[in-house]
Amino acid sequence: MKRREFLKGGLAGGAAAGATALAAPAIAQSMPEVRWRMTSSFPKPLDALFGNALTFAQYVAEATDNRFQIQCFGPGEIAPALQAMDVVSNGSVDCAHTPIYFYIGKQPSLAFGTGVPFSFNSRLQYAWLTNGGGNALMDEALAKFNVVGFPCGQSGTQMGGWFRKEINQPSDWQGLKMRIGGLGGEVLAKLGVVPQQIGGGDIYAALERGTIDAAEFVSPYDDEKLGFSRVAKYYYAPGFWEGGAVLHMVVNQERWNALPKSYQAILRQAGDAAMNAMLAKYDSHNGPALMRLVAGGTEVKIFPNAVLDAAWDAAHQLYREKAEKDDLFRRALESMIDFRTQNYLWWQVNEYAFDSYMIASRTK
Amino acid sequence: MKRREFLKGGLAGGAAAGATALAAPAIAQSMPEVRWRMTSSFPKPLDALFGNALTFAQYVAEATDNRFQIQCFGPGEIAPALQAMDVVSNGSVDCAHTPIYFYIGKQPSLAFGTGVPFSFNSRLQYAWLTNGGGNALMDEALAKFNVVGFPCGQSGTQMGGWFRKEINQPSDWQGLKMRIGGLGGEVLAKLGVVPQQIGGGDIYAALERGTIDAAEFVSPYDDEKLGFSRVAKYYYAPGFWEGGAVLHMVVNQERWNALPKSYQAILRQAGDAAMNAMLAKYDSHNGPALMRLVAGGTEVKIFPNAVLDAAWDAAHQLYREKAEKDDLFRRALESMIDFRTQNYLWWQVNEYAFDSYMIASRTK
Repeated sequence: MKRREFLKGGLAGGAAAGATALAAPAIAQSMPEVRWRMTSSFPKPLDALFGNALTFAQYVAEATDNRFQIQCFGPGEIAPALQAMDVVSNGSVDCAHTPIYFYIGKQPSLAFGTGVPFSFNSRLQYAWLTNGGGNALMDEALAKFNVVGFPCGQSGTQMGGWFRKEINQPSDWQGLKMRIGGLGGEVLAKLGVVPQQIGGGDIYAALERGTIDAAEFVSPYDDEKLGFSRVAKYYYAPGFWEGGAVLHMVVNQERWNALPKSYQAILRQAGDAAMNAMLAKYDSHNGPALMRLVAGGTEVKIFPNAVLDAAWDAAHQLYREKAEKDDLFRRALESMIDFRTQNYLWWQVNEYAFDSYMIASRTK
Repeated sequence: MKRREFLKGGLAGGAAAGATALAAPAIAQSMPEVRWRMTSSFPKPLDALFGNALTFAQYVAEATDNRFQIQCFGPGEIAPALQAMDVVSNGSVDCAHTPIYFYIGKQPSLAFGTGVPFSFNSRLQYAWLTNGGGNALMDEALAKFNVVGFPCGQSGTQMGGWFRKEINQPSDWQGLKMRIGGLGGEVLAKLGVVPQQIGGGDIYAALERGTIDAAEFVSPYDDEKLGFSRVAKYYYAPGFWEGGAVLHMVVNQERWNALPKSYQAILRQAGDAAMNAMLAKYDSHNGPALMRLVAGGTEVKIFPNAVLDAAWDAAHQLYREKAEKDDLFRRALESMIDFRTQNYLWWQVNEYAFDSYMIASRTK
């Protein structure tokens, strides 16, 4: 009983620097009680995004017979949406559920962990991370922040966002104030957009007030909840800057090191399982949500090829510039392009051939 | 020490019927030592398929600090490839890694758990299982076999197989002796094929001897290893009968019930994580394998639309016939079609638009 209490104290959240002092073999022999706090970058009402953090915490609790409990906080409760990783870095919070591309201002290569414009769809993004060297590169980038990270959530291809006017040609981006995060914003800036990084919970107000002209967030299931269709008419596809965006669970390095190996394994496996749960939620809810939006007056548009081509060129110019300044960015870029070149060929032959026929036959 | 030995004895494999006699609360308080045997339907040299069983077992061991160990056997070692679930049903083996469509002769609705012709790609198959009612229907079907099952592996869209002559029109199927499992074989039988169900390890010999004229197995990474390109020239895409085939882990019901809830959770999460690992392996290895096959003389062909249309009609006619005879099949069919109709719309708008552009731009 005393031993359990000691472990509980040593491993619990807050500024407990003593956690690292625990002898690893002693922990490995038992199932210590652990209480962590997690901060999420996503508003609590979004059950696919914030809900994914809850799912992850539930999986961890179930796998440990409730010995390892993680309490999830929304943005603003213990940390702002865009600073979730910062409070994990400094140890004031144990872990965070966040897209690591929020932190490219400090380390640009983190963009590849979430996904960059024109990189991958969901399966290829995950395959690049696990089999193409991506996770190793991200480990290197995340180590600079004193955190360990692993995938915990995927959105699939996101939508291209909400606009008050049509985007018919590349020049239509000019002067547009748009909520868009990650490298997507920097790419569109090259085409004249004034990008704004705004947490999910604050987008609607900015769009309604006219502080911004356009906004991308995720996809129909979330976007419907946030009410964007009430303040913008055109809903564009695809979100070429987020073809298969991955969310990460980032954990303070010392808290991670203090865990038994079995708990580390449980966290990673729970992240994988939660990722599948999130994708499945989107894949079963986006379709019906899109139909409701269209029934309510939203006009769905596909970006014309000339618009995509201009963005492709801007993206790859941006990548070259960043690669010259940052070696880790350069290595991640080369790895991504190499994997993309090899593996979209296979996608084209088989997955795409199957999808093409299924889509054509959907209403048979 | 005595208690652990008792638990070990009670939960270990073989015909240990005593396992059910353990009091659940006693187990839930501890991390019992468990030793299980697993039989796989896939040849040991196939590291994506048999290797997936090893990955699953490794994940379970890591999450339990090696207290729960599962030993994996190949086909023929403790059970034949096509009878993996049977030996789990009767309790002589603890669990099996197998596609549950191998057992449609006894319960046709099991086909939907793996995937049926023209049902889903990988993401939609998983979404249907978890969010569309699929898992609940499969639970009902699997209960008849005294087993619990959950997803543990996915192949993505499989190839359409190896042929010695071209398939240019529906009549070219006539009289073809082909290795093809599941409902795919019954669909092609309507078009004149003589389908053969043969375990993966025995296909090459049958094709070489001329016992069969054609064979489908999985996709380039496996098919290359099994040497099919040496005995058939044409390699067709897509495998419309396996757009996103799921493998299952099936566990004897009494062994499952005897586990602590935390071990049950660990098994399910390990299944999810192993599924991702398998897909990622295919997504990173199929492309290079396909390039090697083509360099070696294999001709890749896409089934013409008329061939796909005839198969679509045959498939849906077969489904109607089976639905009339079996209520569970009927409910699974209606559920699948409903989900397919709603959710390929979303796929078309966004994922497909992104993939289309990425494929067109691959070699830019």
